[in-house]
Amino acid sequence: MKKPYLAVMALAAFAIPAIAQDAPAPSPNEIVDQASTDDWVAIAPEDLLVMTLAPAADGTERKVVIQLMPAPFSQGWVENIRLLARSGWYDDISVNRVQDNYVVQWGDPNYDNPEATGEAKPLPEGLRMMGKGDYTARVPVGLISPDIEADFSPTTREGWPTPILRDAYASSATFESGWPFAFRQYPDKSDRWPVHCYGMVGVGRGYSPDTGSGAELYTVIGHAPRHLDRNIALVGRVIEGIEHLSSLPRGTGNLGFYESAEERVPIQTIRVASDLPPAEQPSFEYLSTESETFARYAEARANRRDPFFIAPAGGADICNIPVPVRRDAD
Amino acid sequence: MKKPYLAVMALAAFAIPAIAQDAPAPSPNEIVDQASTDDWVAIAPEDLLVMTLAPAADGTERKVVIQLMPAPFSQGWVENIRLLARSGWYDDISVNRVQDNYVVQWGDPNYDNPEATGEAKPLPEGLRMMGKGDYTARVPVGLISPDIEADFSPTTREGWPTPILRDAYASSATFESGWPFAFRQYPDKSDRWPVHCYGMVGVGRGYSPDTGSGAELYTVIGHAPRHLDRNIALVGRVIEGIEHLSSLPRGTGNLGFYESAEERVPIQTIRVASDLPPAEQPSFEYLSTESETFARYAEARANRRDPFFIAPAGGADICNIPVPVRRDAD
Repeated sequence: MKKPYLAVMALAAFAIPAIAQDAPAPSPNEIVDQASTDDWVAIAPEDLLVMTLAPAADGTERKVVIQLMPAPFSQGWVENIRLLARSGWYDDISVNRVQDNYVVQWGDPNYDNPEATGEAKPLPEGLRMMGKGDYTARVPVGLISPDIEADFSPTTREGWPTPILRDAYASSATFESGWPFAFRQYPDKSDRWPVHCYGMVGVGRGYSPDTGSGAELYTVIGHAPRHLDRNIALVGRVIEGIEHLSSLPRGTGNLGFYESAEERVPIQTIRVASDLPPAEQPSFEYLSTESETFARYAEARANRRDPFFIAPAGGADICNIPVPVRRDAD
Repeated sequence: MKKPYLAVMALAAFAIPAIAQDAPAPSPNEIVDQASTDDWVAIAPEDLLVMTLAPAADGTERKVVIQLMPAPFSQGWVENIRLLARSGWYDDISVNRVQDNYVVQWGDPNYDNPEATGEAKPLPEGLRMMGKGDYTARVPVGLISPDIEADFSPTTREGWPTPILRDAYASSATFESGWPFAFRQYPDKSDRWPVHCYGMVGVGRGYSPDTGSGAELYTVIGHAPRHLDRNIALVGRVIEGIEHLSSLPRGTGNLGFYESAEERVPIQTIRVASDLPPAEQPSFEYLSTESETFARYAEARANRRDPFFIAPAGGADICNIPVPVRRDAD
């Protein structure tokens, strides 16, 4: 794919463009394409990971770019991940598990893998241990105007462009600083959490909430497994190259683990982008979720009026309004 | 995969079984495993399609089993699909489009494909033309007890085991006869529709609602694209072998179409299972969505209490409660 997957997916399968009479309503894609440059926010190279898989059988290069979760969420794990990347710990690990409509998981193939055959790789010094209290954010209220009441309508609010969405798992869901969140009681930001949408990256753990350092990571390759929200730490999302993970053969072992070492996909390196030589640093930006353009895009996702559609939905799931992310053209 | 994908996905990635003290709450999987044989409903072979792809590069057989949508939904298209299968029209078509986090689509590579190089294959006589009014069901009310009021709580109702779910696209969503539906105003069944969950199969069409015969089909391989509900006819769901579709390389053309004929995946045949020799007929059954077992399963999906979980969600998306389907052991 040439575009980051978070760019909106076009819809009509076999739609032949009609001859324009009245101007048709713009599609969500067209709204994003018309955004001004001011609507886009640069992502710091310190917040990007570049994961390089071994080339495909036909020699194709396979790179996956991950954007790390911003403060105040999951920062202990995010710091661990930068430490693991900088210590070279991730070099020569592998993709060990691919479970259809669920997750692709990578890490040390000999760590707690039912198909392990060797010894686990020692972890570097200095990793933080995170616990049960770290799976949601408890932060000072203030960024959201306190006089806004909860609004479960899928469309936008006058004077407050952020779309507030009805949600099957929370009182409501909305966006902030480029990320999707669910709220126990919007607009109370003191109890909100990032959500398991397609492409989100999380930290594998054992039964105890204080296991899981960031050495074992996974990404979602199916319908949003939102029951994992607040149970597993989300630390980022794939913003380019997810097809190198989502199209891998499914594992035939328990939970989709590969049953033989030959099936595992080698990971050559995972690097923090700011540590790469400047010429190799990828540069990405996201559409500001606080912009009017994003509000119009989200509203159009929830109420499709472009020519293919005969019944606008009147609502949308938080995970069906992917935040547009693109390579910086500069 | 050994199990149909609709069987519930297990969760804990690296969970080491704890030593049992109090009996832990059963997982959704365990509830399904303990269902009595009476809870399972056989699927008629007339309602199953077997799609045989060309073998994989390593010689692996690739068969996909599709369960067709029951009346009163989409029956014009479903009849067309049986006619197309029985006339041999589907033989030697191909998978032409794989768009990440969206759909896999198959049909005549020369029909309205931006990458077509030849002439479209003529369709058989006798196909029905369906129109705008056929995308939702308008059927007599009666199967659901009329004295039940709408209930958006995610858990089950006393005396009425069907779970009624809060939904981002409709007043509510629930299950009937083994399928997920959204309701404009539950329990009014006169306006309800099947929903685009992972693995659902739909009919590609052009701009006009009365295009789309059933010759071009797709299945969902990503987060539920529920904005397509009521805009495209859903005619079934993949109940086995979806990994043969979901793990295909993503197309690099517009909308995920393959750019070269060599990339297309040949489909050898699509047959109605009842037309196959008895020894080759697959036999499947689904967990009755009217059973108490299903109600307990759905409730457990919405409120995970098995040992891995620290924060039960208190709700679930309709597409995150896949109806269990399995091969009949008999």
